[in-house]
Order: sequence, then C-alpha cells, then structure tokens
Amino acid sequence: MDENLKKQLDFIIEIDKMKNIHRLSLLMDKSRRETDAEHSWHFAMAAMLFADYADERVDIDRVIRMALVHDLVEIYAGDTPAYDVRGYQDKAERETASADKLFALLPGGQAEELYALWREFEAMETPDAQYAAALDRFMPLLGNYMTDGHTWAENHVRESQIYARMGIIETAIPKLWPYVQKVISDSVERGHVIRG
Amino acid sequence: MDENLKKQLDFIIEIDKMKNIHRLSLLMDKSRRETDAEHSWHFAMAAMLFADYADERVDIDRVIRMALVHDLVEIYAGDTPAYDVRGYQDKAERETASADKLFALLPGGQAEELYALWREFEAMETPDAQYAAALDRFMPLLGNYMTDGHTWAENHVRESQIYARMGIIETAIPKLWPYVQKVISDSVERGHVIRG
Repeated sequence: MDENLKKQLDFIIEIDKMKNIHRLSLLMDKSRRETDAEHSWHFAMAAMLFADYADERVDIDRVIRMALVHDLVEIYAGDTPAYDVRGYQDKAERETASADKLFALLPGGQAEELYALWREFEAMETPDAQYAAALDRFMPLLGNYMTDGHTWAENHVRESQIYARMGIIETAIPKLWPYVQKVISDSVERGHVIRG
Repeated sequence: MDENLKKQLDFIIEIDKMKNIHRLSLLMDKSRRETDAEHSWHFAMAAMLFADYADERVDIDRVIRMALVHDLVEIYAGDTPAYDVRGYQDKAERETASADKLFALLPGGQAEELYALWREFEAMETPDAQYAAALDRFMPLLGNYMTDGHTWAENHVRESQIYARMGIIETAIPKLWPYVQKVISDSVERGHVIRG
C-alpha cells in the first residue's frame, strides 16, 4: 500500500482515542462528561453558526479546521482543565511532546499543516485563532450555565477568574459579550460562582 | 437580546443532543458505542485527511461542513442503522420531518444554508456529496475492521450487502478502494461477514 495512505489510515485510527478523553464539562442533560471528540464537533458547529459576528478578517473554514484539530494533542497529554493552576504549569511542554509524537504519524506536508494550525490556535494572535479561542471558552461557559455551574461550583471558581478567561470573547466576538456577562452574573446570583 | 442571536443560542444548545444519540458502531477500543457527535467529528477529520484523493471538483471545506451537519436530523429521527431494511422504509420521511423542526430554530438564511447542505448530502449527486457519502460509509467500515466486525457480525451482514453499500467509495475515492476490498475479504476470512 502507498506509504502516505498507510500513514493516514494509522492516524485516523489513532485519533479515535479522542472519543475516550473526557473533559470536566457535563453534557447539557448532565448525564455524563463530554468527550474531546464531542466538544471539538460542537465548537466547529459554533464557528459556523456565529460566523456573522466574527471580525471580517476571519476565515471561518480555517477556524472550523482549527476546532477539529485543536485538542488532538490531548491524546497523549490528557485534558488540562481551565482552572487547574498546577496543570497549566507544564501544559505547553506536555502538549508539545504530544504534538511531536502524534503529527509524526502523518505524511510530512500534512503533519506540518496540522501542527501549524494547532500552534496558531495556541498562540491566540491571529484573527482566526482569536475567534477560535473565544468559542473554545464560550462553549464550556454555556455548558456550565445549562448544568447549574457544574465545573465552576466543583472547583470553587471565582467570578474574576471567569472574567479573566472569557475576556477574549469581548474583543473577538463582541456581539456575544452581553450574554456572557449575563451568564456570569446569573451564576453568581445562583451561588454557582464565588462573587468577586 | 437580538432575535437572531437568541435563535442561534437555542440551536447550539439543542444540538448538544447529538452527544446522546448512539450509533451501532463501537469505539475502536470496543468500550462503548460511539455518539453521533463523535462520528461527525471523525468524519470531518477524514474529509480533511483524505483531501488529496478527492476528485478535483470537490471543495473540501464544504464537505467538512457537510460532515458536521449530516446527522443533525437524527436528533428527532434517531439513528437508522445502515443495514436496517425496515428502518430505511420511512427514513427519508422521518428525517425530513426532523429537519423541518430542527432547522426552523435558526434564523432564515442560516436555516436554509444547513438544510441545503443536508439535502445535498442525502441526494449524493454532486462531487462534494459523493466524496462525503464515501467517507460516511468508509468510517464505520474501518470501525468494524478494528472491532472484529462488530456490527456486521451482530446483524448477520453479507459480503454483497457491504459491497453494495461501499460501492460509492470506488468511484468517489478510488485510492481507498483496494483497502476497502482487503477489509471486506479479511472480514469474510475471519468469519465476521457472511460470504457471498
């Protein structure tokens, strides 16, 4: 069999593991935690749906691809929860090691293409990456709102921590910002988030 | 709140249900059945990875969007397994009713855009839809190969039924065809598929 095709088949099989990496976030019906594969799909759908609110420089199709690949590095590095201070200390190192290992399964050009998309997403500097990062943060905020603040309450998260993490939404998708503020203030009122 | 944004938020919440629709296919480690959200993500990744083997008329980014939305109608219609003859009798009717209900949650233009993508996928006539359909069939074939022919054996599927269903791969992604033939013949040899 053609060497490139063999590599691509090995890769598509390997990334099935995304269906076994569980995030802290619950499904909205609270039945269980969602998987990385499910989150990546939902995030890609959001990139499509909120397209009209993105900066005009944003290429929605590139963001959709970014959403699909942004968590692949968790296959070997695991999920690092948003408010896990200790986990964030070596997150970049663990994920880079994982990216090196995972993308090396692919033919050269394709490995570089996916690696570059992931690096761009992580750097949060381009308009595409900023729109993507805003949605990657918005989705679990919405999930928490629908599940009585599940991961916020479980981790004793403060209002100020959420504002710090969600700030990118104000600049990248200003249209969503009033709703984000309402979600946070409702959640403080309901006792799911620590005030201040 | 802006009426369109409110509709889009309702929609993005509603489609969380894709994480609760289980297909017959197992994860490749056999731990459980995969969900529609997971399958849609994996299919979109395949569309990206096998791009070089698509007909030159295929627009990969449109196919990725098609992959993301192709199973949304199952939110109200449920999954109809590939070899479920009775289920296929009213599949189109059930899914159209579901599409009418689901896409109506969205603002007009966006509803029409998603509806059109789904209809195009189902019709399997355009180069984009043929490439998409080929991958939508290839993914569970690969999944079955990795799980001892799970859904084939469970449903006493015959070799000829698989060839009939996979035929679109030969025309839309000829590069994958020899591998598909090998998967089927191995599966017959191993007793996971009924010969003939």
